[in-house]
Amino acid sequence: MIDFLKGRLVSVYPEAVVVEVGGIGYRVQVPPSLAASLPEPGETVFLYTYLSVKETALEMFGFSSELDRTAFLLLLGVAGIGPRTALAVVGRLGTRRLWAAILREDTGILTTVPGIGVKSARRIMVELRDRLEKQQVAVSAELPASDGVPVLAGRAENEALAALISLGYTPREAREALNRLPDRKLDAAGLVHAALRIMGSQ
Amino acid sequence: MIDFLKGRLVSVYPEAVVVEVGGIGYRVQVPPSLAASLPEPGETVFLYTYLSVKETALEMFGFSSELDRTAFLLLLGVAGIGPRTALAVVGRLGTRRLWAAILREDTGILTTVPGIGVKSARRIMVELRDRLEKQQVAVSAELPASDGVPVLAGRAENEALAALISLGYTPREAREALNRLPDRKLDAAGLVHAALRIMGSQ
Amino acid sequence: MIDFLKGRLVSVYPEAVVVEVGGIGYRVQVPPSLAASLPEPGETVFLYTYLSVKETALEMFGFSSELDRTAFLLLLGVAGIGPRTALAVVGRLGTRRLWAAILREDTGILTTVPGIGVKSARRIMVELRDRLEKQQVAVSAELPASDGVPVLAGRAENEALAALISLGYTPREAREALNRLPDRKLDAAGLVHAALRIMGSQ
Amino acid sequence: MIDFLKGRLVSVYPEAVVVEVGGIGYRVQVPPSLAASLPEPGETVFLYTYLSVKETALEMFGFSSELDRTAFLLLLGVAGIGPRTALAVVGRLGTRRLWAAILREDTGILTTVPGIGVKSARRIMVELRDRLEKQQVAVSAELPASDGVPVLAGRAENEALAALISLGYTPREAREALNRLPDRKLDAAGLVHAALRIMGSQ
Repeated sequence: MIDFLKGRLVSVYPEAVVVEVGGIGYRVQVPPSLAASLPEPGETVFLYTYLSVKETALEMFGFSSELDRTAFLLLLGVAGIGPRTALAVVGRLGTRRLWAAILREDTGILTTVPGIGVKSARRIMVELRDRLEKQQVAVSAELPASDGVPVLAGRAENEALAALISLGYTPREAREALNRLPDRKLDAAGLVHAALRIMGSQ
Repeated sequence: MIDFLKGRLVSVYPEAVVVEVGGIGYRVQVPPSLAASLPEPGETVFLYTYLSVKETALEMFGFSSELDRTAFLLLLGVAGIGPRTALAVVGRLGTRRLWAAILREDTGILTTVPGIGVKSARRIMVELRDRLEKQQVAVSAELPASDGVPVLAGRAENEALAALISLGYTPREAREALNRLPDRKLDAAGLVHAALRIMGSQ
Repeated sequence: MIDFLKGRLVSVYPEAVVVEVGGIGYRVQVPPSLAASLPEPGETVFLYTYLSVKETALEMFGFSSELDRTAFLLLLGVAGIGPRTALAVVGRLGTRRLWAAILREDTGILTTVPGIGVKSARRIMVELRDRLEKQQVAVSAELPASDGVPVLAGRAENEALAALISLGYTPREAREALNRLPDRKLDAAGLVHAALRIMGSQ
Repeated sequence: MIDFLKGRLVSVYPEAVVVEVGGIGYRVQVPPSLAASLPEPGETVFLYTYLSVKETALEMFGFSSELDRTAFLLLLGVAGIGPRTALAVVGRLGTRRLWAAILREDTGILTTVPGIGVKSARRIMVELRDRLEKQQVAVSAELPASDGVPVLAGRAENEALAALISLGYTPREAREALNRLPDRKLDAAGLVHAALRIMGSQ
């Protein structure tokens, strides 16, 4: 329900920040990497947010990009992965390296994140690869209405573009990655994997 | 609890929009038809809303008119119909065609909406017709206090006017529809049906 | 959690109003008598509120005075009385006549409210009388810190004053009612009953 | 989720205050000692807050310092201690005397708080001492990123500094207390205990 907060940064803690919006201070759980990258308290900040609703708690989680938030939400969909663990994965690995690891089926790198054992790493691997495929099928049915992305290129490229956007990449990031592919004679899945590999290595 | 949002349109997705109100971005689920009809991001928009509260989620659904929201709420009252399916019905058919279909007992048109099979279509048909009748009985007991609608015309017309208003039509829409009826020697139910048919064919 | 709303009155329905505060429209359930007493849409209104939290709904109830809200909250504490019924009692009888009825043990008047049968009326009678007594015991232990009410008069009068304030009367209303009592040689309970009778007959 | 409220003080009750922020009045449960210490209604106030979420209630609790709120949250973690009892402990004893009592294992002073019997006092004692130790272990792993505290002094002092800050003391309070210790040749736990004793006696 709450998509973002834009307000005055008031306090920075190791794993949370407080942002004031209109006289109300919102405590937002963030990865330590994001907390360390924020400006000095007093400056205006913009955080993409996810509102976690439980029977006995309302908690807000914050991200610097839609890309990170989308990865967080996909991780939340994996059985046994709660918001804090999902936040740790996004915070420690960063989304680009996460997708690159998923493509390489590199469970090892996932287990470097506190709270992720071999079993959870495998489950993340299986479910996120599956979602990656599904993401393309769902997306190809409804090409994005936003940002007037030109639907001129071939069907596979457009599907790949839509899939990358629905993973949280901006249209510009997605288009640039696709344009840098040496071989574009691939199906949508192949284009997405190749683009993710390129962005994962940046 | 939250009846509407008035703020800056920030992002448009295929099935959701983000509206900023006072530094907070609210993500609102909307039918694709509404998403496509909104102005450019940056403009001010007004959405009638419904706040769905569940044990693990707070979700906001948005509408361009009280008419659509009222239909959505009545659909929500039908067993087995959740917010997303109700939104799909309102988005795909539009409220006028929905009421016209209910009057014609046309379950076929309901099944064109993804997520609605024959069984759900029949249940919607039965329950919404029943509600339509009840709507009139309840409404006739308490004529609307809003908009100073002149209670001069006959009792049946006033009941029909109140029923149409409680279905979400504005007083002006309801009065115009009743005034265009060739035969006004009907009881309240008859007047309502005839008016809905006229508005359903527009 | 939400004690009041102060904003622009946008819409008035038979049993609810919509108040805009900072770009958000809040739908507030109110008694018809309050809806009918509000100014024209567009004016600024102030409503004391109660936020009802349930597993599948957040609903706001509105009152024109703390007195009405306090009575509503005490009614909510009676087994089997939900917010809508409590609102109907406060709306139909008004708090002063409610307390006068409780003192006279007049269950008949309670049954004139839709949704209140003889059994519920008796339960309301018993529980509110009991609360009335408890209210005084609790209150007498902690005299109000607000409004600098002079604690010069006798102990019984101060206890009665505190009890009336905790029932939602303003300090001025409570003091005036006590000052109009012909016989003030009563204990706190007697003073409260007598004052309620006077205010109930206004 | 809601870290603080900054707004106009509207009403003061024995155990709650109402603060207006942007047209909405928020009712905040506070200890009587805090209610009595607030300025006149109409002035701007700042309260650190805790939003308690239950299936049938959203309640806000308020504090004048992070120190008090941190103690409140640690008390909430003790089995059988709810928000009102935790608020009563913080309100009656004050956080400094609470920590001093925990260090002295003085359960007697805890039982002076309404709602705290010998059994709860013992449980608070055991669990808060345990948390105190844990607090240091957890904290020493992630030295605070806030307020650029110079990490020049010895490792034990920095761990003690971080532990005191995570208990809610400001960096300045923590550093001053450590600087006043006659004997600083202690491990982190010893430094923390000594500092708490000094601050507890102020």
